[in-house]
Amino acid sequence: MSRIELHPDRLLPAEPETRRIAGRLYHAARHLPIVSAHGHVEASLLAEDKPYSDPASLFVVADHVVTRLLHAHGVDLERLGLGPKKPPPREIWRTLCDHWWAFRGTPAREWLEAELVEVFGVSLRPAPETADRLYDELSDKLLQPELRPRALYRRFGVEVLATTDDPAGDLAAHIALAADPTFSGRVVPTFRPDRYLDPGEVGFAAGVAALAGAAGIDTGSYEGYIAALEQRRGFFAACGATSSDHGTPEAAAIPLPAAEASRIYRAALAGGAVPKETAAFRRHMLCEMARMSCDDGLVMQLHPGVLRNHHTATWRAAGSDGGHDIPLATEYTRSLRPLLERYGTHPRFRIVVFTLDESTLSRELAPLAGFYPSLYLGAPWWFLDTPGAMRRYRTAVTDSAGFYKTSGFVDDARVLCSIPARHDVARRCDAAYLARLVAEHRLPEEEALEVATELAYGLPRRVFRLA
Amino acid sequence: MSRIELHPDRLLPAEPETRRIAGRLYHAARHLPIVSAHGHVEASLLAEDKPYSDPASLFVVADHVVTRLLHAHGVDLERLGLGPKKPPPREIWRTLCDHWWAFRGTPAREWLEAELVEVFGVSLRPAPETADRLYDELSDKLLQPELRPRALYRRFGVEVLATTDDPAGDLAAHIALAADPTFSGRVVPTFRPDRYLDPGEVGFAAGVAALAGAAGIDTGSYEGYIAALEQRRGFFAACGATSSDHGTPEAAAIPLPAAEASRIYRAALAGGAVPKETAAFRRHMLCEMARMSCDDGLVMQLHPGVLRNHHTATWRAAGSDGGHDIPLATEYTRSLRPLLERYGTHPRFRIVVFTLDESTLSRELAPLAGFYPSLYLGAPWWFLDTPGAMRRYRTAVTDSAGFYKTSGFVDDARVLCSIPARHDVARRCDAAYLARLVAEHRLPEEEALEVATELAYGLPRRVFRLA
Amino acid sequence: MSRIELHPDRLLPAEPETRRIAGRLYHAARHLPIVSAHGHVEASLLAEDKPYSDPASLFVVADHVVTRLLHAHGVDLERLGLGPKKPPPREIWRTLCDHWWAFRGTPAREWLEAELVEVFGVSLRPAPETADRLYDELSDKLLQPELRPRALYRRFGVEVLATTDDPAGDLAAHIALAADPTFSGRVVPTFRPDRYLDPGEVGFAAGVAALAGAAGIDTGSYEGYIAALEQRRGFFAACGATSSDHGTPEAAAIPLPAAEASRIYRAALAGGAVPKETAAFRRHMLCEMARMSCDDGLVMQLHPGVLRNHHTATWRAAGSDGGHDIPLATEYTRSLRPLLERYGTHPRFRIVVFTLDESTLSRELAPLAGFYPSLYLGAPWWFLDTPGAMRRYRTAVTDSAGFYKTSGFVDDARVLCSIPARHDVARRCDAAYLARLVAEHRLPEEEALEVATELAYGLPRRVFRLA
Repeated sequence: MSRIELHPDRLLPAEPETRRIAGRLYHAARHLPIVSAHGHVEASLLAEDKPYSDPASLFVVADHVVTRLLHAHGVDLERLGLGPKKPPPREIWRTLCDHWWAFRGTPAREWLEAELVEVFGVSLRPAPETADRLYDELSDKLLQPELRPRALYRRFGVEVLATTDDPAGDLAAHIALAADPTFSGRVVPTFRPDRYLDPGEVGFAAGVAALAGAAGIDTGSYEGYIAALEQRRGFFAACGATSSDHGTPEAAAIPLPAAEASRIYRAALAGGAVPKETAAFRRHMLCEMARMSCDDGLVMQLHPGVLRNHHTATWRAAGSDGGHDIPLATEYTRSLRPLLERYGTHPRFRIVVFTLDESTLSRELAPLAGFYPSLYLGAPWWFLDTPGAMRRYRTAVTDSAGFYKTSGFVDDARVLCSIPARHDVARRCDAAYLARLVAEHRLPEEEALEVATELAYGLPRRVFRLA
Repeated sequence: MSRIELHPDRLLPAEPETRRIAGRLYHAARHLPIVSAHGHVEASLLAEDKPYSDPASLFVVADHVVTRLLHAHGVDLERLGLGPKKPPPREIWRTLCDHWWAFRGTPAREWLEAELVEVFGVSLRPAPETADRLYDELSDKLLQPELRPRALYRRFGVEVLATTDDPAGDLAAHIALAADPTFSGRVVPTFRPDRYLDPGEVGFAAGVAALAGAAGIDTGSYEGYIAALEQRRGFFAACGATSSDHGTPEAAAIPLPAAEASRIYRAALAGGAVPKETAAFRRHMLCEMARMSCDDGLVMQLHPGVLRNHHTATWRAAGSDGGHDIPLATEYTRSLRPLLERYGTHPRFRIVVFTLDESTLSRELAPLAGFYPSLYLGAPWWFLDTPGAMRRYRTAVTDSAGFYKTSGFVDDARVLCSIPARHDVARRCDAAYLARLVAEHRLPEEEALEVATELAYGLPRRVFRLA
Repeated sequence: MSRIELHPDRLLPAEPETRRIAGRLYHAARHLPIVSAHGHVEASLLAEDKPYSDPASLFVVADHVVTRLLHAHGVDLERLGLGPKKPPPREIWRTLCDHWWAFRGTPAREWLEAELVEVFGVSLRPAPETADRLYDELSDKLLQPELRPRALYRRFGVEVLATTDDPAGDLAAHIALAADPTFSGRVVPTFRPDRYLDPGEVGFAAGVAALAGAAGIDTGSYEGYIAALEQRRGFFAACGATSSDHGTPEAAAIPLPAAEASRIYRAALAGGAVPKETAAFRRHMLCEMARMSCDDGLVMQLHPGVLRNHHTATWRAAGSDGGHDIPLATEYTRSLRPLLERYGTHPRFRIVVFTLDESTLSRELAPLAGFYPSLYLGAPWWFLDTPGAMRRYRTAVTDSAGFYKTSGFVDDARVLCSIPARHDVARRCDAAYLARLVAEHRLPEEEALEVATELAYGLPRRVFRLA
């Protein structure tokens, strides 16, 4: 049975002198605190601090990066626990181990191996013949107190963890954590209003009704709807939020005259808005979010360019986040112009723009970030949160925007256990990139050291106003 | 007169330790049998087994990669044998040798040099002063029995060779080869119906009439047309075909209601279909091909995104394949959705998608292949069948789709002699890519060895159902 | 106070053997004369030969690559001298020194450091504590005769310098320089007619009136307008011009029937052309420029794909070239087809096509340049005039177009002092690219040496008809 070997120099350049430089740069960033400015871990996980139930739920079912590639190799999502009939967790775990070869060369494998070794202290390589022994070892570990969420939070050196939250929610777990004298961490919510801003989505009317309930403001009129959103943003900010987050099919942000916005809003609530109108309203509301950011200072995170739930039958069977959200070509230069014309040089406004379309990095996003003081470039995200894409990102972006108009690393994690592995990969990759600059005599090593610590720690803290 | 030096380590990484690893990986893949799953060599070449006529026809006239770059440097295509007036082959060969400098840094030169040295045993570097001597040496060689097509097929270690064929053809050469006890190779046809599926193309009506003749089914009605296509697919499958192949300007596949398809079909035959209708019909028929694949198991190869015959005057003078087919930006996420909604998880359906638009690799194609069990990612193709593009392909694709949702190498060769050189370049480049993963401690060498042999041999065999 | 260290091997590959090869290739190209075939230095600078006024005007105010990134870090453009109220130059210089960290990893820093050390002999690293001392040192230097424009021109080894000029201008400075026996250089104008070709631009009517004045031809009719443009091109050619230059939002070039062009022209002069018409006219006129090129032999440089003046408030306050021109996705295959159908194989026609959209390099531009004898691929430009983009350019382009269908380096400089640094970076990067080919045994070193000198010197001379 072969063992996972986590080489201390993994992901650093092969050329010996460059590797030595990269090693020194990585050493400087390696143990800095983790600022997790964007992700999908729930605050209740830390509020409740319950042990994880089993290895399959933790490593497979919760992670669509894993389930999607297994599905691509012919494994029904139901066999992975993503359907009404749940197989025993041990079966799910065996399915992963049977397909371990499918993950060769992928970041999912790099994260999982690091988690197994560094978080769980388990080094057997997953394979059909090791599946049961690994399952048993991991199940035992999960019962230990040092593997409960709060213990992991401390051990990982997390300075602050931002969650992603429903604007109509009560943030009870966040409030409980803040009030809990036995928890010394910092867990802040993020205002994620997508479904409240797009009247083309199913359930928009029910959503704004829930918003009214949460805000205590009647959302029957457009003015009330705007006031309720402002109230909820204020509540989130009071609970520690420093960002709003926006996942949209496109980057377009185009204001409407208030009367027209109001007319579409009424039509949408009455069920009579056509797609052209609902799209116009969604684009208008993205601009409104920017306007509110100027007032309340929430950093606006924009994650555009995804067609969600590409395969309808899978969505019906397994729900959202089933691994078939697929990126789209995305336009930023014209799309963001109306928003940037209005707020691009506003002293309080800040927008962090992400992309899944790498062709936009050197063409549109770095030139925009290299001019507008309000615009920062988000880290490589989702399908691009990988060693190869990180290198392409720095190569494409640094020319026009330098290092200091990028956001620093953002983990976007769904599972607490995976956070340190993700930050570690990013710190290694940035060290590798910087080492190449040093080795080619383009940047003195002492300056590269400063940049390495900024990318890992200083920038995410400051860019997302978490300092 | 300088000589071609084929260094044994060519295309392997320069860094010494990485090169040693790459050398070991390449060694494992180097001599595996060749599975040529997609290409344009004619079956009659092997059925007839005649000697090649002359070096110019073989190395210049038949290869649009060569003629196009000579044309770009001001050589009329007529001087290269691509017009009504044919110059003497020796003159064509001299023209190539006069412009050898133009091929510096291109894959065409890498293939040609490897062919000269490894197939013909000739190592003079082409140049004005070597042209005649080379021409004479090559002409002599071409008369030798070991350079006739069947001898080359054996010597190259070809396990199976897929040709590209007209659905109305009789596959006589394939049938003859299969029946010939003196030929032990395997040559299979591929069903390539482009001109029968697009009523916007000149000659559509004549084409479906030919189809009727071949199938023995009246294609006067839409139902008959569909039945004739199904009959021809069945005939191809019976003759050994495992794939259909589709070259289209775009990836869109959108089904029409049968009545609407039938209406457009009738209008097209009557010469009365407008471009919007013929495009809708073409998109519909791509979906129909997928439907038929679910039944007959032919793997659907999709090669979209080319504007054919960009320069009309050249097309009139020199015909198709004149070197001025130019790629277009291509969209897959929305375009393939209707097809994938219907057949994307069908257990028998398989589609291998190629692209000439590299921006789609990380953005659309790898995410699609990383979810849909039916969808595989084709190898870098045509303008991208090059060492640089192969490396970019693996870097862009592996993150989301791993190695095992790619098709393995596909040579797309027009000339039998060039097949081993093309596979050799791919095996070297994949070894180089894998060696970097090993050198950066991202993949153990024993696993990289397995991947190297899969990419070279196992995957094309299985993905194209040639095993 | 730390010092700038310009390492002799900067930008060459880190791997030792590859670096040695690159060093030899760079050595061959390093001291070749500079052919500056496209840029924005004014001829009057050399005609007048006045000393530069101060370091801030030279290094900051005139360079939008510098001002835009300072603006992105919150510095008002007015504080950088780009507004009605000019701060003292020393203050502007201090602002740059305060933000030197922001330029880490950017080409702007590489150019500036090389200029400071190699042109001015100053090696203090810019920083808040060195700002005043540097300012004083540089101010002293600027008074020395060897730092006046003509002395720099000589010292830099410029063989020919092409400026960018208004078709209605009198080219007085060019004429004066040509007649000046004390100036032995060669300064040629470039015909840049953008504002005279787009009736959608403000001031079109005034522009064609000025054209009439310059040409002595009434532009009240379309025929007169065409004749005036032809006259001005002829005048430019007589003054040494070898190129026209075209900056457009898109690459589309679509001829109109003369009657339709004439109709729109009249409507535009009367202020009655709608945007659809003015765009059609602009596309038509790009084709007309190609037609004229066939007659007068001016090389047509095409620089498409930029949305100029993205932030209107900044444009109002600071004018054009304020650093907020932002690239757009650009299409070439279909857009250039009408022009190439007509003139693509014309023996006198030549077009050099640039791009800011890297996704088009392997997909559209290299395939076009690899077929059409008239079409050359321009060097990486503007946001892409960087070490990283140069490498991506060669990797994407060489496969289909080789080295000899690219234009060789074009500096696009606004400041005379920056010209040698820009050419030096390009020569280093091309040497690095070629050295990798040599180290991977893809090109013999003696051929790579030839290519290195061609890219640096031979190609720009011949491609822009400056030989």
